[in-house]
Amino acid sequence: MTIDFKQDILAPVATDFATMDTFINEGITSKVALVMAVSKHVVEAGGKRMRPIMCLLAAKACGTEDLEKHRKLAAIIEMLHTATLVHDDVVDESGLRRGRPTANATWNNQTAVLVGDFLISRAFDLLVDLENMVLLKDFSTGTCEIAEGEVLQLQSQHQPDTTEATYLDIIHGKTSRLFELATEGSAILSGKDQYREPLKRYAGHFGNAFQIIDDILDYTSDAETLGKNIGDDLMEGKPTLPLISALQNTVGDDHDLIRKSIATGGTSDLDKIIQIVQNSGALDYCRKRATEETHTAIQALHELPNSQYRLALEKLALLALNRIQ
Amino acid sequence: MTIDFKQDILAPVATDFATMDTFINEGITSKVALVMAVSKHVVEAGGKRMRPIMCLLAAKACGTEDLEKHRKLAAIIEMLHTATLVHDDVVDESGLRRGRPTANATWNNQTAVLVGDFLISRAFDLLVDLENMVLLKDFSTGTCEIAEGEVLQLQSQHQPDTTEATYLDIIHGKTSRLFELATEGSAILSGKDQYREPLKRYAGHFGNAFQIIDDILDYTSDAETLGKNIGDDLMEGKPTLPLISALQNTVGDDHDLIRKSIATGGTSDLDKIIQIVQNSGALDYCRKRATEETHTAIQALHELPNSQYRLALEKLALLALNRIQ
Repeated sequence: MTIDFKQDILAPVATDFATMDTFINEGITSKVALVMAVSKHVVEAGGKRMRPIMCLLAAKACGTEDLEKHRKLAAIIEMLHTATLVHDDVVDESGLRRGRPTANATWNNQTAVLVGDFLISRAFDLLVDLENMVLLKDFSTGTCEIAEGEVLQLQSQHQPDTTEATYLDIIHGKTSRLFELATEGSAILSGKDQYREPLKRYAGHFGNAFQIIDDILDYTSDAETLGKNIGDDLMEGKPTLPLISALQNTVGDDHDLIRKSIATGGTSDLDKIIQIVQNSGALDYCRKRATEETHTAIQALHELPNSQYRLALEKLALLALNRIQ
Repeated sequence: MTIDFKQDILAPVATDFATMDTFINEGITSKVALVMAVSKHVVEAGGKRMRPIMCLLAAKACGTEDLEKHRKLAAIIEMLHTATLVHDDVVDESGLRRGRPTANATWNNQTAVLVGDFLISRAFDLLVDLENMVLLKDFSTGTCEIAEGEVLQLQSQHQPDTTEATYLDIIHGKTSRLFELATEGSAILSGKDQYREPLKRYAGHFGNAFQIIDDILDYTSDAETLGKNIGDDLMEGKPTLPLISALQNTVGDDHDLIRKSIATGGTSDLDKIIQIVQNSGALDYCRKRATEETHTAIQALHELPNSQYRLALEKLALLALNRIQ
């Protein structure tokens, strides 16, 4: 199925999206010039704004007419996302993101840490303005879990014994949890409690699929992944699903080489590792898992009434899956 | 006047303090071992817990009997304080704090950044549980201003033209704002709106005095400042009040040397700079300003009913001033 992002996913909420995009910029106000400069830099470096779009689509899929509050929520989601990216780039010592210099590269780590803190605080500040206690609790718990996922990832770095279960905990925290906040938060704000759970389930499984796909692309050389290089994860000794699965499917020298590469990091054995990963059937397993997660996500949507918005959420999940097919 | 911290300041709220201290530890729960280990490390490295004590004293000074919620608020304040210290140590590349290895030194910058994020999120999570919208707004705005103060400090590093007004903005953000949240927050939680403003004024001016005193101690060699070394600020090119004032009082070579030292950082000229600062009358001016701020702080307390708790807050401000007398 050919899916076009703009036409099939963005178009149904294009007007609200445009207003939301303006709001992201307006939401970042500070008397401190450096705060403004860095915040603008990182927010403008944003990608497709997939998370706020999910938030807006979820609201419409719940049957909400007026998205005034949801546009703010969507902007808050993007701000939180940006804050985590800014800190991630410090943690990963990244110089580029989506082809643009990162905040830590343009300024320095110090600035990136503190402006990231500002963005987290500002996101909460805007969230408080929505005056919804249930939403606030969901977000305050959720952001704890996101931070925990990031630390768990760090804790698992260079650990060849990392299990698939731990990997799933990591990606749930670092990726899926914010997806969940974007959609479940929308239902909370709409007062549509009956759609909270299915929208959370959709987002959680879609998030898992999205991250597994991202991790597959790190080992497939024909990937058109802007700003991401083949072997980045291996370089950092990150035990992602392709490696975890390859370890399960191999013995002897191949097995030992993967273990060693996770433990030490670096890409000196990248070509050999890619070959082992591919020959072991690990990528097939990852593709199967990503496909399963996508279908579970789409299944959850069936508890919502049929609409062009629900269809757009479905297509969003399928579009991500297209990247590995 | 001889003031004893334990007897004069802590004693009136000792029981609540003990419960609060337990709550800080209980409030930090995580399934992720590394989150627990780092959080415990940094929270246990805490000092006198001055901010939570201020929070408890303020509650009692407002006439509040049951401090159950205030104990939680006090723990939240300390958690936020700890989170900023963890990130500060990354920013300042500090290896020691209060004589103990910092989180970034014990683990690494990455861990410190992410666990700091966790502590900020966890503090907000506990704050949401207090279910007070006014308090939430005060804290979400306040934490933005704290982050802005930190960035402003970074922006002013190595800038010899930094004015006293900018310096005051910096210390308000990095120090006084959290003091304000500790005391004004207490009044909000007590439903004593009439005491919000005076308690905020007390804390704001006390915070200013506290930071000016800290900055004086960085240039006085007989200081018994645990974990802080003479010349730390000069090393980092921080234009604190002693230098700003010395610049105003000097001309020629002395003036130029201070400007150069701020611009470049480093402590190669430390002895000479200390001499210039002392001879210029800058430290006298700083002491005068700290004394003024302390008296303005105490003045504000007079709008509260007389009590042993109000007296303890007064003594707390005077105790800080004793450090430079």
